[in-house]
Amino acid sequence: MEKILILGAGRSSNSLISYLLDHAKERNWQLTIADYALQLAEDKARGHERAKAVALDITNDQERKGLVKEHDFVVSMLPAKFHPVVAEDCLQLEKHLFTASYVSPDMKAMDDQARSKGLLFLNECGLDPGIDHMSAMKVIDHIREEKGLELRAFESFTGGLLAPDPTDDNPWQYGFTWNPRNVVLAGQGTVKFIQEGRYKFIPYHKLFRRIEMIHIPGYGYFEGYANRDSLMYLDVYNLRGIKTLYRGTLRRPGFCKAWDVFVQLGATDDSYLMEGVEGMTHRQFINSFLSFNPKDSVELKLAHYLGLDLEGPEMHKLQWLGMFDEEPVGLMKGTPAQILEHILKKKWTIGPDKKDQIVMWHLFDYEEEGVTKRIRSAMVATGENARETAMSKTVGLPLAIAIRLFSEGKIESRGVQVPISKEFYAPILDELDSLGFQFIEEEVILD
Amino acid sequence: MEKILILGAGRSSNSLISYLLDHAKERNWQLTIADYALQLAEDKARGHERAKAVALDITNDQERKGLVKEHDFVVSMLPAKFHPVVAEDCLQLEKHLFTASYVSPDMKAMDDQARSKGLLFLNECGLDPGIDHMSAMKVIDHIREEKGLELRAFESFTGGLLAPDPTDDNPWQYGFTWNPRNVVLAGQGTVKFIQEGRYKFIPYHKLFRRIEMIHIPGYGYFEGYANRDSLMYLDVYNLRGIKTLYRGTLRRPGFCKAWDVFVQLGATDDSYLMEGVEGMTHRQFINSFLSFNPKDSVELKLAHYLGLDLEGPEMHKLQWLGMFDEEPVGLMKGTPAQILEHILKKKWTIGPDKKDQIVMWHLFDYEEEGVTKRIRSAMVATGENARETAMSKTVGLPLAIAIRLFSEGKIESRGVQVPISKEFYAPILDELDSLGFQFIEEEVILD
Repeated sequence: MEKILILGAGRSSNSLISYLLDHAKERNWQLTIADYALQLAEDKARGHERAKAVALDITNDQERKGLVKEHDFVVSMLPAKFHPVVAEDCLQLEKHLFTASYVSPDMKAMDDQARSKGLLFLNECGLDPGIDHMSAMKVIDHIREEKGLELRAFESFTGGLLAPDPTDDNPWQYGFTWNPRNVVLAGQGTVKFIQEGRYKFIPYHKLFRRIEMIHIPGYGYFEGYANRDSLMYLDVYNLRGIKTLYRGTLRRPGFCKAWDVFVQLGATDDSYLMEGVEGMTHRQFINSFLSFNPKDSVELKLAHYLGLDLEGPEMHKLQWLGMFDEEPVGLMKGTPAQILEHILKKKWTIGPDKKDQIVMWHLFDYEEEGVTKRIRSAMVATGENARETAMSKTVGLPLAIAIRLFSEGKIESRGVQVPISKEFYAPILDELDSLGFQFIEEEVILD
Repeated sequence: MEKILILGAGRSSNSLISYLLDHAKERNWQLTIADYALQLAEDKARGHERAKAVALDITNDQERKGLVKEHDFVVSMLPAKFHPVVAEDCLQLEKHLFTASYVSPDMKAMDDQARSKGLLFLNECGLDPGIDHMSAMKVIDHIREEKGLELRAFESFTGGLLAPDPTDDNPWQYGFTWNPRNVVLAGQGTVKFIQEGRYKFIPYHKLFRRIEMIHIPGYGYFEGYANRDSLMYLDVYNLRGIKTLYRGTLRRPGFCKAWDVFVQLGATDDSYLMEGVEGMTHRQFINSFLSFNPKDSVELKLAHYLGLDLEGPEMHKLQWLGMFDEEPVGLMKGTPAQILEHILKKKWTIGPDKKDQIVMWHLFDYEEEGVTKRIRSAMVATGENARETAMSKTVGLPLAIAIRLFSEGKIESRGVQVPISKEFYAPILDELDSLGFQFIEEEVILD
């Protein structure tokens, strides 16, 4: 019998735990689901005979180590800052570790020790990072290993969106399907990428104007804006020498220009506490960033300041959010970003019947016999409702499948790993495909 | 005999040391001028019988304390980060301290101890901060104390500029008369001020577009952009309840819109090292921030991106700087801000015959018998050459005068002080006036 400890029973653990419970009997697993909130853990255990729910304060070293000690595999779905502590326990107590988070420098530094103890510390095995790595490396390996050709360009975009809903009047076609704070702060810092052999840099205040239009057959158009640092993928995917490298985030058309209004105003700034937040209305919040002129409306001042049509789609999106209403924000204090998040939650919190949608899209250019060829690869996953989300499935299932493969002895890698080798991506993508998460590839000749 | 220790013999110490030497015999002073570079200290001592030059490594505790111990007054013209160390010495060895820098929290915390030992730690007694405090408080006290009226609005702008020179083709009418790095980074962070009773916030990327035009009779028009945090003056000047509070920086007309090009591009970003700096040309530097399109010129891409006229004044200013030239930057590595500074120095480093100009301007609104009145107060100081600058005089003379007044027993304040009380500003402004630094005041009725 293998004993699996799952740390964290939040929404993103749903599909992970379901998959592990579904395979628990066949694999002879015993699951322990631990969360600070016992109720959450019990909900996820759903009375399953092979599942046990426990309450855990992760900062209590004795409790945490005691739990880790009793298990064979540890799955951390905790906020990323807790991973190093858990990883230290796993090193000390010689347990395998699985996370969906980016490899931090602390984690990276444990590679040698984990390897020498024969432990697997698998990270970045969720959606993004996770499925993006696997689906990209599958095509990159196809071009480089199987065809022996060189990759000229690689672009990759992912979006966590709402599924299209013609009954919904939300002109943003967007809602909070994941951490609202991260949505508000998205893109801060400087964006770096490579285009046709040249390093390119975009400051945050221009990011949402430098967008790319992407078409996915059957799903229509999307806008892509650049992620912070594409350059780190030069090493992760071994792409040194590539001419174009660009990673980004997808939104529905029209989103970026409207979101840019908040960026231009300074309303996404998280670096200082505003004055006079108590009693501030939505309208006053917007007006804080505009010049004083009591004779002009906030709407006209804003439209003029940012060069928007007063009746245009950006102003309409802001009106729909109630940004010009004399409604109290409802906070006692906050940074601009915190206040904006609070206002957005009033309209962007999604109801229980709403379906989310994950869209992932890659582009690969390579030359074959003097002809430039382009492979496009796309996956679209739609959630069932606000609980069984596409986000939860695409984050949790790759990790759960990896655990099953490891349990079956099909994974030989040890040390700190990310799923970029065929040993990981081939069986995980195959099973995701059979579960309904297909990548549709098409190849075109460019010239 | 009083012994005065001057720490730091850089350009900004010129006028300070000259003034102290000129009064050394009359006041029976002995000066020690200490610098890391002995040559600099010797230049400033200029063989004066009452001056001695010494080499000092400020980080050598024993050397530094030894020097401080032998003196009665310590004047620190060092970079602000060294002030707390020197202030600790002064506390321990019971010496009076004089600086032209902002009071740091570390300095502030020494107030009680300095006071109880009967020591004066005078700070912010240069130009800005310094003359701005004194000239503003003189008018504010006039309105509040003498007239018993309430201040409605206070605006204050200072600029370190070049004196007008019709023989110069520099279309910016600007050069580096002080620390170039600070010029490049000026305004970063969020600007906060109060306008007609409302708190207003401007993000950095909008700062150079939200300018105010200011006219100074006899000197023409200036552009003012807001300084980072005007709100701290609510407490410094005891202005709680004021309707408008705005502090800013002056430039010549047209400067801000052209400088904004660098801000919009992200070329003033100091947060990351660029790739491929070795061998990079000015033109490639600019192109790094523009989209890839080999068929279009960098000029056209830039003009289109930022909505500039291809033949307009902003493009002309950039051309004059050589920003579009295929000239190597000449650095091996650097942040965008460091690279921009390096390029700008090629044209903005001022020759030995150039004259700098300091411009300071205040506005005060108050109501008297139902009528709103406005006092405007302006001072313009022009340097003699690149060594005898207006900057050096206006920074050094107020501090030197304060030292003389203190030596004459005319200053009773003790503890950590800034020169906002009449004891300081009345005699210092009087002497500055007699030295040629006059504030011209005019009063108008607004309605």
